Amino acid sequence: MVVVEVKIELKKGVADPEGMNTKKALNLLGWDVNDVKSGKLYEIDFGEDVTEEEALEEVELMCKRILSNPVIQTYQISIEG
Amino acid sequence: MVVVEVKIELKKGVADPEGMNTKKALNLLGWDVNDVKSGKLYEIDFGEDVTEEEALEEVELMCKRILSNPVIQTYQISIEG
Repeated sequence: MVVVEVKIELKKGVADPEGMNTKKALNLLGWDVNDVKSGKLYEIDFGEDVTEEEALEEVELMCKRILSNPVIQTYQISIEG
Repeated sequence: MVVVEVKIELKKGVADPEGMNTKKALNLLGWDVNDVKSGKLYEIDFGEDVTEEEALEEVELMCKRILSNPVIQTYQISIEG
C-alpha cells in the first residue's frame, strides 16, 4: 500500500493567527516556547497498483493544482512508512 | 534550536469530512486515490536553552492538555530536522 504524506505550511512572512494564538495559550499555561507554526497534513492512500515514484509525482501535481495555495503556502511530500 | 513537530490525526472511525471531500475532489479531477485523511501540524520552537529530550517531554504534556483532543485524535511527536 502506497501512502503519501503531504505537509502544507505557510510561507515565511505570511500571518499565522492560529500559530500565534497557540503560542499565546502555551505561554499563558507556563510553557516557554518561542514560536508556534500551524500547518495542514494530508495522507493520501493510493492502494497497491501504483509505485512510490508514480504516487509522489501525482501528489506533486495535486499540491500544485488543489492541495496548496502556492502564493502563501509551501508543501513537503514524503512516502509514509 | 530545538523545533518539535506535532502531527495530529483523527482516530480510526472518526468522521473526516475534510479528507472525504478532498478525496472526492481528487477523484473528480481524474486521480485514482483510495482514501485521503486530513490532519493538523504544529511546529513548536523552543529556542536554544532546552535539550531535545526536555522539549519532547513538554510537547507530550501540551498534546495531552491543549493541542489534541484525546477522545477523537491521536498525536505523533518528533524532533524536526
